[in-house]
Amino acid sequence: MKELCAMSRNELSALYEQTLAEYKRCQSLGLKLDMSRGKPSKAQLDLSAELANMVIPPEAFISDGIEARNYGKLDGLDACKKLFADILGVRPGQIFCGGNSSLTLMYDTITKAYTHGMLHSDLPWSKLDKVKFLCPSPGYDRHFAICQTYGMEMIPVPMTDEGPDMNVVMSYIADPAVKGMWCVPKYSNPTGITYSDETIHSIASMKPAAKDFLLMWDNAYCIHEFEGDFVPFIDILSECERYGNADMVFEFTSTSKVTFPGAGVACFACSEDNMTYMKKLISAQSISYDKVNQLRHVLLLKDREGALAHMRKHARIMSEKVNAVIELLDEHIKPLGIAEYKKPTGGYFISLNVMPGCAKKVFTLMKEAGVVMTTAGATFPYGNDPQDSNLRIAPSYPPIDELRMATQVLCTCVKLAALEKLAN
Amino acid sequence: MKELCAMSRNELSALYEQTLAEYKRCQSLGLKLDMSRGKPSKAQLDLSAELANMVIPPEAFISDGIEARNYGKLDGLDACKKLFADILGVRPGQIFCGGNSSLTLMYDTITKAYTHGMLHSDLPWSKLDKVKFLCPSPGYDRHFAICQTYGMEMIPVPMTDEGPDMNVVMSYIADPAVKGMWCVPKYSNPTGITYSDETIHSIASMKPAAKDFLLMWDNAYCIHEFEGDFVPFIDILSECERYGNADMVFEFTSTSKVTFPGAGVACFACSEDNMTYMKKLISAQSISYDKVNQLRHVLLLKDREGALAHMRKHARIMSEKVNAVIELLDEHIKPLGIAEYKKPTGGYFISLNVMPGCAKKVFTLMKEAGVVMTTAGATFPYGNDPQDSNLRIAPSYPPIDELRMATQVLCTCVKLAALEKLAN
Repeated sequence: MKELCAMSRNELSALYEQTLAEYKRCQSLGLKLDMSRGKPSKAQLDLSAELANMVIPPEAFISDGIEARNYGKLDGLDACKKLFADILGVRPGQIFCGGNSSLTLMYDTITKAYTHGMLHSDLPWSKLDKVKFLCPSPGYDRHFAICQTYGMEMIPVPMTDEGPDMNVVMSYIADPAVKGMWCVPKYSNPTGITYSDETIHSIASMKPAAKDFLLMWDNAYCIHEFEGDFVPFIDILSECERYGNADMVFEFTSTSKVTFPGAGVACFACSEDNMTYMKKLISAQSISYDKVNQLRHVLLLKDREGALAHMRKHARIMSEKVNAVIELLDEHIKPLGIAEYKKPTGGYFISLNVMPGCAKKVFTLMKEAGVVMTTAGATFPYGNDPQDSNLRIAPSYPPIDELRMATQVLCTCVKLAALEKLAN
Repeated sequence: MKELCAMSRNELSALYEQTLAEYKRCQSLGLKLDMSRGKPSKAQLDLSAELANMVIPPEAFISDGIEARNYGKLDGLDACKKLFADILGVRPGQIFCGGNSSLTLMYDTITKAYTHGMLHSDLPWSKLDKVKFLCPSPGYDRHFAICQTYGMEMIPVPMTDEGPDMNVVMSYIADPAVKGMWCVPKYSNPTGITYSDETIHSIASMKPAAKDFLLMWDNAYCIHEFEGDFVPFIDILSECERYGNADMVFEFTSTSKVTFPGAGVACFACSEDNMTYMKKLISAQSISYDKVNQLRHVLLLKDREGALAHMRKHARIMSEKVNAVIELLDEHIKPLGIAEYKKPTGGYFISLNVMPGCAKKVFTLMKEAGVVMTTAGATFPYGNDPQDSNLRIAPSYPPIDELRMATQVLCTCVKLAALEKLAN
């Protein structure tokens, strides 16, 4: 097989007919497959069966002197704060254990910026004419949805293999209307890259014109290796502190992809001054979050080592699936030179860049063959991928056979879209 | 014993000396008692031991086709929606099951009014010069704290035995800046009264000038009888609908005082149109709430009858405590004619009106004798009780012996404050 661009018109025409026939065969199978969202599979849920079934005698609900079953302790059980602090490499006093969702904590943090302003804001953002936010792209669609619900102006920043293009970031932060930036520093959603130390130093030492600049550090995949050993990461809080930016950053993570998605524990981490400020605001919103679930997580995961050991079980399941997708792409797509992708070693996604102008077409072809993918464009602000090239593959949820089937269909669709493009 | 107002100067003087000695004896005991918050006691937590310890086999997590352990179903498990719908007497489609706290759902609802506006708002409230809110008082301090964090102007409305004084309410709602009202319709916090049907009709048929008027119907104590049978209540949603006000009301409740405070399930109920509007907004905030805990609650409580049976166990514990307080007040305070209170038949509080100008004094005397009460004034907007008369007694948390001791101290302090006042 040679690259498409090296083929003659006749060869292309023959391959097109063959691929179209392949596609029609796919369609005739009446598939109903879904690889659209980063949902753990049932086998992954079962890894945490103990979480749902542990027996806790009444006296064991007292954790560091706090009755987990009753009201109180807004920032969470000390044992749970310590667990997250150890995982993130921060101090326990910098941790706020919230409810079940880091997305909710992110939304709530930005909401507080709008309703009350952040610690160093002159005004709540709702009083400003214009709020702009830096959105490294491709990125996570739910981050962009938060910006959109608040009517922010999203500024796409190109992603490199080392993180956001810092030259572009630097050119924007001189504008005081630029109020923050989204980052998924480890196994970035969707590209799977991890920010280089240099990029992180550069981010932590930024001097944005907005003194209430909000660095949204979504460390969703902090311990989510599926290949190789745990990869240590820089503690962004002390890194920012080192450059006099202690209050610039809020870090987020959760156990959604450690134990149960939507029934785990989420936290944010921030400077002690930010913590004092946020706790005062949150005290109007909540008496306390679900400490019984926090306690269950402490009993299940125990400590950082326990969490890492637990993640190695996920890794076995995830790596098999990622490998299956990569093998099929390597076999059917790579030789044709019509798409780019990298094999990730952690996180939840494979980012696939098809030929420019083809991503929406591939998405539609997939849909019409019964396979749902993340909407083309969703990885860019306003759903607008300027190249119409990026697709996010979420391999975790389907059983391996379905995933292979779905990826086969994907390969066919990527080929078909490329061939149609070249024919026009 | 005769009423204080009928006593001679000499009698008053003698009683004062005697009471002062009593108070000093209380002080010398070095007490450390707390009857400040409506926290269930350990015995009440243990009633729901099964909730923390139930074993759920993997296949049982599928509830109406939804895997409770994975992402999705923003508005909650259908079975949990049905449970709350049956309890509140509304349609399941009118229920949104959220996280662990109805306070958070209330805060979030008002926050949405500020950030996005409600369904019928012309503008988000953050864009308005002035937002006023009706606060029937005495009321719940955490409601007032939400108003305060948003800088609303709180308007106190006197409470009668039938609910808020509707003449006062009617006089205010002609002002389009009056955007809503707090209500605790059953076993009101702190007075313990239940709104009369007439008051509820009157509320449901209001025609406020603000077309986005927000009736915050906090039905916290909907099944919280501790004396007598369950008392049915009017479904405020259909009542509002009947008067063309379907979108005016949001009702809230939770299992915080049914199972575990802060580790239960909360919900709001609203019209289907409001639900569509809110779900769209909330979809930027959350993928889904903790459905595993929702499932646990469905398995524990089963249905409305199961919830009522569970509440009868709470009733036995609560009624003993409320009776203990009332007996002591009846014995030591009632004959003197220096305070007013009613024995509630449900809810969590006893509201005590001491002689005008004495509540803060009683609070301080209590504190100096080692007993923490809810801060005097806390039951009024801005902590400002114009009569300085209302105190909220929260009898649920302390063991019965400590509660009796604390109430003895309270009786002494109420007497002492009254005698000091009469002496001046």
